[in-house]
Amino acid sequence: MQQFDVAIIGCGPAGLSAAINVKAQNRTVLLVGPKICSLSLHKAHQVNNYLGFYGLSGEELRQQFLKHIEAAGIEITNITVSGIYPMGKVFQLQIRDDFVEAKAIILTTGVTASKVLPGEDSFLGKGVSYCAACDAMFYRDKTIVVSSDSAEHEDEVRLLTEVAAKVYYLPQYEVKMNLPDNVEVLDSKIKKLKGSDRLEVVELQNGQELTVDGVFLLKEQLPPTQIVPGLQLEDKHIKVDEKMATNIPGVFAAGDVTGRPYQVAKAVGQGQIAAFSAVAWVQN
Amino acid sequence: MQQFDVAIIGCGPAGLSAAINVKAQNRTVLLVGPKICSLSLHKAHQVNNYLGFYGLSGEELRQQFLKHIEAAGIEITNITVSGIYPMGKVFQLQIRDDFVEAKAIILTTGVTASKVLPGEDSFLGKGVSYCAACDAMFYRDKTIVVSSDSAEHEDEVRLLTEVAAKVYYLPQYEVKMNLPDNVEVLDSKIKKLKGSDRLEVVELQNGQELTVDGVFLLKEQLPPTQIVPGLQLEDKHIKVDEKMATNIPGVFAAGDVTGRPYQVAKAVGQGQIAAFSAVAWVQN
Repeated sequence: MQQFDVAIIGCGPAGLSAAINVKAQNRTVLLVGPKICSLSLHKAHQVNNYLGFYGLSGEELRQQFLKHIEAAGIEITNITVSGIYPMGKVFQLQIRDDFVEAKAIILTTGVTASKVLPGEDSFLGKGVSYCAACDAMFYRDKTIVVSSDSAEHEDEVRLLTEVAAKVYYLPQYEVKMNLPDNVEVLDSKIKKLKGSDRLEVVELQNGQELTVDGVFLLKEQLPPTQIVPGLQLEDKHIKVDEKMATNIPGVFAAGDVTGRPYQVAKAVGQGQIAAFSAVAWVQN
Repeated sequence: MQQFDVAIIGCGPAGLSAAINVKAQNRTVLLVGPKICSLSLHKAHQVNNYLGFYGLSGEELRQQFLKHIEAAGIEITNITVSGIYPMGKVFQLQIRDDFVEAKAIILTTGVTASKVLPGEDSFLGKGVSYCAACDAMFYRDKTIVVSSDSAEHEDEVRLLTEVAAKVYYLPQYEVKMNLPDNVEVLDSKIKKLKGSDRLEVVELQNGQELTVDGVFLLKEQLPPTQIVPGLQLEDKHIKVDEKMATNIPGVFAAGDVTGRPYQVAKAVGQGQIAAFSAVAWVQN
């Protein structure tokens, strides 16, 4: 199994800053993120309050950041981590049906990822799944909803269409794969998950109600509480101390995911502190 | 009296970041610092762990920061603030024998400034002074020691030589002024301040002991606890919460002065948070 000193989940300013600071201290780093690191920075018209750069668009600043990462010899791995589990002195990170290990974790998943659907938390493991490779077999010959935000997940979608009897598919991107006959594509998004003990009904934003056995939410980045079970929040943000430590020993967090202000400089600064804390944790 | 929304004491990365973030929110800012903003950055061989810049010397990075400050239309004022006192809804900042007002304060004085001589705290106001313009008259016809780290203070030194009977002068720089006959220049530094109720003896690093009535410590930047009476420390650093607030309402702190790691990114991030908090304070 591949092992790293520090795994960083998220490649916005906080994650990138954490990565260069882990690497600078001679520790190995796994840096995981979606295809576009920091969509919000990418979209920003101009950023004039990150010290050292003036008059740059968000995208230009983002390119400066990515150049730095490249110069430092750090790779960004475009995969979805679906779960992180403490196993004695290391953490196991689930990536599809494979695992890698890391001695410390830094969560820098930003704010957009933390939106959770009504019912999502309560039906987790009771009809709600984030990982086809992990859970597909529980839905053999059943009816499921699959929501996906990226063509990255089409392998997982294919697996689900093979196993399930009927798939309602809600792609939030331009579909590239050929879809078999048991798939019905719907042009809407999930509004609410309903049921009693288990998930029973998926309500869509267009008002449609689908009676199903399960739902797969395939996202480029999961909410941190879904990735790390037991993570403590405060006002919808990950609770951290001044060293960026969360309530779980060895797990740190930085950037927007820890709270306001949602700003580049704050994220970069916290990323650095988290890196120092994670490296100190790995050494002890 | 000149009034500002936010006064920032110190012009290293934390102070500069705070300044651009206050200005960006349409608030007036007084940015005060020594001649070289961030001597430690100026001396740094290379800084590779501040996101966005790779392969620059500390001085090159410092120049980027100063360029940003200039582009943002912010001036750095090279004066020594000798005291900050809460006066109802504003703070009064003592600058020699003058005052300016600010609604909120951000302390970014770094670490070097926090070295305090043995006895310095206990004899403050009992023989120890930081401000000739404020306290010279208490030492008419007395014997005093004057220590100064910059030619900036020569006006103050001149005043002291006019008032006091005898001045032992310990310049930590190349003296430019003509010194009158009652001045004895000594090539050493202060090691310790001794006495019972009041200061009585100044012990030098060369072993010499001077029996005196007072000592003037003229520094480009004072320790923050001397500037702001009642400021709470923790392990020699200013104690702050996650919003960079100190124990004194309206006074914030950022950068090395708040603790380790002593790093640029952390300082810039905290400077930004402090700016947001100070602006919020001013608005309420």
